[in-house]
Amino acid sequence: MDFSINNFFDKKHKDSKIGHFQDLEHIDGLSISTISCGLYDKKRDDLVLFYFREGANYANVYTQSKLVSENIKWNKKIKEKKIFGILVNTRNANALTGKDGYNSLKRISLNLSKLLTSKQISDEDKPREIKPNQILFACTGTIGEKFPENIILNNTKNLVEKIKYNQNKLIWIKAALGIMTTDTKPKLSMAECKIGGTEIKIYGIAKGSGMIFPNMATTLGFIFTDANISSSILKQVLNLNIKSTFNAITCDGDTSTNDMVSIFSTGKAHNKEIRSIKDPKIKQFINCVHEVMLNLAKRVASDGEGATKFVTIKCLNCKTEKDAKNICFSIANSPLVKTAIFGEDPNWGRIAMAIGMSGAVINPEKLSISLGSNLILNNGRLDKNYDENTLSEYMKNEKIEIIVDLSIGSKKFTAYTMDLSNEYIEINADYRS
Amino acid sequence: MDFSINNFFDKKHKDSKIGHFQDLEHIDGLSISTISCGLYDKKRDDLVLFYFREGANYANVYTQSKLVSENIKWNKKIKEKKIFGILVNTRNANALTGKDGYNSLKRISLNLSKLLTSKQISDEDKPREIKPNQILFACTGTIGEKFPENIILNNTKNLVEKIKYNQNKLIWIKAALGIMTTDTKPKLSMAECKIGGTEIKIYGIAKGSGMIFPNMATTLGFIFTDANISSSILKQVLNLNIKSTFNAITCDGDTSTNDMVSIFSTGKAHNKEIRSIKDPKIKQFINCVHEVMLNLAKRVASDGEGATKFVTIKCLNCKTEKDAKNICFSIANSPLVKTAIFGEDPNWGRIAMAIGMSGAVINPEKLSISLGSNLILNNGRLDKNYDENTLSEYMKNEKIEIIVDLSIGSKKFTAYTMDLSNEYIEINADYRS
Repeated sequence: MDFSINNFFDKKHKDSKIGHFQDLEHIDGLSISTISCGLYDKKRDDLVLFYFREGANYANVYTQSKLVSENIKWNKKIKEKKIFGILVNTRNANALTGKDGYNSLKRISLNLSKLLTSKQISDEDKPREIKPNQILFACTGTIGEKFPENIILNNTKNLVEKIKYNQNKLIWIKAALGIMTTDTKPKLSMAECKIGGTEIKIYGIAKGSGMIFPNMATTLGFIFTDANISSSILKQVLNLNIKSTFNAITCDGDTSTNDMVSIFSTGKAHNKEIRSIKDPKIKQFINCVHEVMLNLAKRVASDGEGATKFVTIKCLNCKTEKDAKNICFSIANSPLVKTAIFGEDPNWGRIAMAIGMSGAVINPEKLSISLGSNLILNNGRLDKNYDENTLSEYMKNEKIEIIVDLSIGSKKFTAYTMDLSNEYIEINADYRS
Repeated sequence: MDFSINNFFDKKHKDSKIGHFQDLEHIDGLSISTISCGLYDKKRDDLVLFYFREGANYANVYTQSKLVSENIKWNKKIKEKKIFGILVNTRNANALTGKDGYNSLKRISLNLSKLLTSKQISDEDKPREIKPNQILFACTGTIGEKFPENIILNNTKNLVEKIKYNQNKLIWIKAALGIMTTDTKPKLSMAECKIGGTEIKIYGIAKGSGMIFPNMATTLGFIFTDANISSSILKQVLNLNIKSTFNAITCDGDTSTNDMVSIFSTGKAHNKEIRSIKDPKIKQFINCVHEVMLNLAKRVASDGEGATKFVTIKCLNCKTEKDAKNICFSIANSPLVKTAIFGEDPNWGRIAMAIGMSGAVINPEKLSISLGSNLILNNGRLDKNYDENTLSEYMKNEKIEIIVDLSIGSKKFTAYTMDLSNEYIEINADYRS
């Protein structure tokens, strides 16, 4: 399967540069450090620090699960105007670890903030005192295991020493690799645009491969920009874009305790202040953030555990957007549909089954279903050009598109997912061993 | 795996006989015929007629899908006081077949009613004229394929000729085999009780192995009794029992277009008329119908596609029954939980994840999770006796019990499911080939 790194780039925005990951370079005001502290048996990076020397504005969206990890609780309490870093660990989710897990983060943030303050004093012209509650945490891995506080504490000094002030492509890839769990590929994306004549960079990395079903944010996604944008506008930009990107993907219908998507702006591009999201000067910026988020979200879906095919599901002309979304996810989460796609079987009856069980308002006599450009059900009846052989050929593609047209309204939704293969079972039957 | 046929019998009702399938014999007033008419490539029975010579009272519950098969539409229109038969075909669901599929049933019912009327004239003392709308249909198989009307019409004469007035164990098993699709085992159950001193038989058969997630009825289930009970009381008995039986099982979260559960009473036991469901004389009968339905439902779940383990999920002490049910099904439908069970991995973090995503009201500090008798999470903290090795041993069992205690209310629910194995993928990736 060729999910080559540029496969999902969409170059529709003439005014902006949607670039290749090869173009990822330095974002002024951001520093990265990645190390291995032995959280896994095998040697791999498992601790990544994104450090903002002069602080950054920020906004986050979180999982809608009723059981959230201790780091999400920590992040939600932070009310500081600027944050100075986000520490990402893999292998352990720090979820269902109770007060012990929370207190671990307290002690790590205290330790890390001291180390970073010392670094400021030795490195910077205007050293800043960094407070523990100016550090965010993202954790991903097994739920319910004791959080490896001591291992992390023993490695923060090394982590801070290894901070690189100038990023290049390799450092970005190291960071994207360092936050992975069962992912098979690092996920990076970038776009460039202008805000009132000033050039702006928007870089993103993400991880996520199982337990991906959104209600709000999903998986881990981090967007970095050198734009000068307030936290309040960042929050609005994130909210505006999350529904059709990270909230439009599903791998297995499961929702993590730890999902978060964050955006950070260092302000170092020094564009003029933007006072409202309606300011036409940031329209391009909003579109580019959307591109980066959609690109990352698609990469997450296409790297879903055991994926052999990338599936786009479009539901058109519904009474409500909610109906459109329910139909998309009913299809996207159906094990029967997903196994048929894995088996390259154009078993469209299962798509119909999933539409029926979605609970959406439908008129069976107006329902149409297509696979790619092949119309199957045409206003409730088998299309006259229906041909099983053509469909079987179509199912051999690596990218499958399912289009459902209800013809009873004007609302629509698009969701992204993958097929369900033997490998999903193999990965998940012995994840912890 | 030993799902021997008596594995799920529950003998708690002292006053009633919950019997072995070996005891299935004749139900007066019911006749059965099963034949192969070549709907499958391989030779197997695929057409089963249950025939009531003197008519039967009846009640049905159907799938909650918004896209229902043509036979469900047909059945829903029937308002006759008594029906005379139900014809069950496999291989083709007659769903998404539109008016053509409906008209096929019209012609088959006309043909079959004529054949049965002729049989009445030649066989019976008081021959009855059987009308087309006194015949129900149950269809199961692939959705969207043209309904094989002609094949069935060419075989109805043979089917009617092979009607057996006296059933024995072998005929019951043949019928249970004849309605199967991807099932690996026939599903039968029985109970006996008394209504006001009169001995009553309650026999049931079912099929269903994938696409099993209930909102109302699920899979195909047929209950037969010789009790003298009105259709209106049968309907109440069915409604009373469906929630904790056929609506408490799930295999893959998918809901069929064709699900139905029916109960038929021939009245040949000649018990005194029952005028109300509150009449204490039918309490035993209601309990026995529950036993038969629960037993069949468990058999369906335990024979779920690719199942290697049978899983019972109990959710206790919730604020509402809806919360308890949502938590049970969130766990039961989670591919991550199901693959962990297949892998014999006591990855209870995934159970916590599924609880969190259910949307139910929970207090994390009061949440307890057990696997069998092994307490893991005790009021939100890892229990002091938690031992990974003990849990790993427990996971080797063929029957797994997950118990979730919310400790915030008094409502509860129990659901039944199976694990998710490689075999599920194999069965469903090439179901049609």
